[in-house]
Amino acid sequence: MAERMEKTELTNLCLIERGEEILLQERAASDWRGWALPGGHVEPGESIVASVIREMREETGLQIEDPRLVGIKQFPKGGGRYLVFLFRARRFTGELHNSDEGRVAWFTRKELSNLPTVDDLAELIRVMDDENLSEFQYVVDNGRWTIEIR
Amino acid sequence: MAERMEKTELTNLCLIERGEEILLQERAASDWRGWALPGGHVEPGESIVASVIREMREETGLQIEDPRLVGIKQFPKGGGRYLVFLFRARRFTGELHNSDEGRVAWFTRKELSNLPTVDDLAELIRVMDDENLSEFQYVVDNGRWTIEIR
Repeated sequence: MAERMEKTELTNLCLIERGEEILLQERAASDWRGWALPGGHVEPGESIVASVIREMREETGLQIEDPRLVGIKQFPKGGGRYLVFLFRARRFTGELHNSDEGRVAWFTRKELSNLPTVDDLAELIRVMDDENLSEFQYVVDNGRWTIEIR
Repeated sequence: MAERMEKTELTNLCLIERGEEILLQERAASDWRGWALPGGHVEPGESIVASVIREMREETGLQIEDPRLVGIKQFPKGGGRYLVFLFRARRFTGELHNSDEGRVAWFTRKELSNLPTVDDLAELIRVMDDENLSEFQYVVDNGRWTIEIR
């Protein structure tokens, strides 16, 4: 079989839940501004699960204990693709802290509609909540980005 | 943020269930011989979910209706990594058929221990069955491959 490698940027996001509340991060970076789920890059060769545990510890101070893969987000980038492994965690230890990436805070799901979130947060959380959905994909057609959910 | 792309080969596998039975494929390819889960490559730009629906139709004749992402398998390859999106499906239509990739047949889970399967089938299915596990990773250290499950 022919070799079929694609250039891919590998990242993670995690929905950490505390009862009815979820943890959001107000992103300091300029590329994707607003309240968002915390996350970061998977390092070369790193375990995907280990990467999300490490990123949550670095960005929120919390040591998540039960990250579970609940979906994938993707969009085209640099002739290849940007992949986001979507995790959910309900058990953690440690004390909440902010990081250089942004401050973090707990919100109820009801509060989300009044928050300045990143554009796709509600739809992303919908994919993570719904057991029948596994993928959130941006498809680019003639420069227009549309969301496809499966 | 620095650009961080890795060379990645993107593939899928699916555990199709019919009551107590699961669908296996006796691989014709020489690289990974034995009874295995059916699967194949994600085409450039293709949706991950669409890719597993397409591969199941091509390799088994079945049109799966509810593929759900239940984990990830990975190992190092060519300076980058080989990634396998692990899906599970319980609803399908269509008639079972073989393909050039190998013949397909239903087996009960009890029958697996007496089948000439690919080496890691039992552990792979364990990761897919267990909701607390999301990743099956081969780690290479001094030429020795070991399995890490998280």
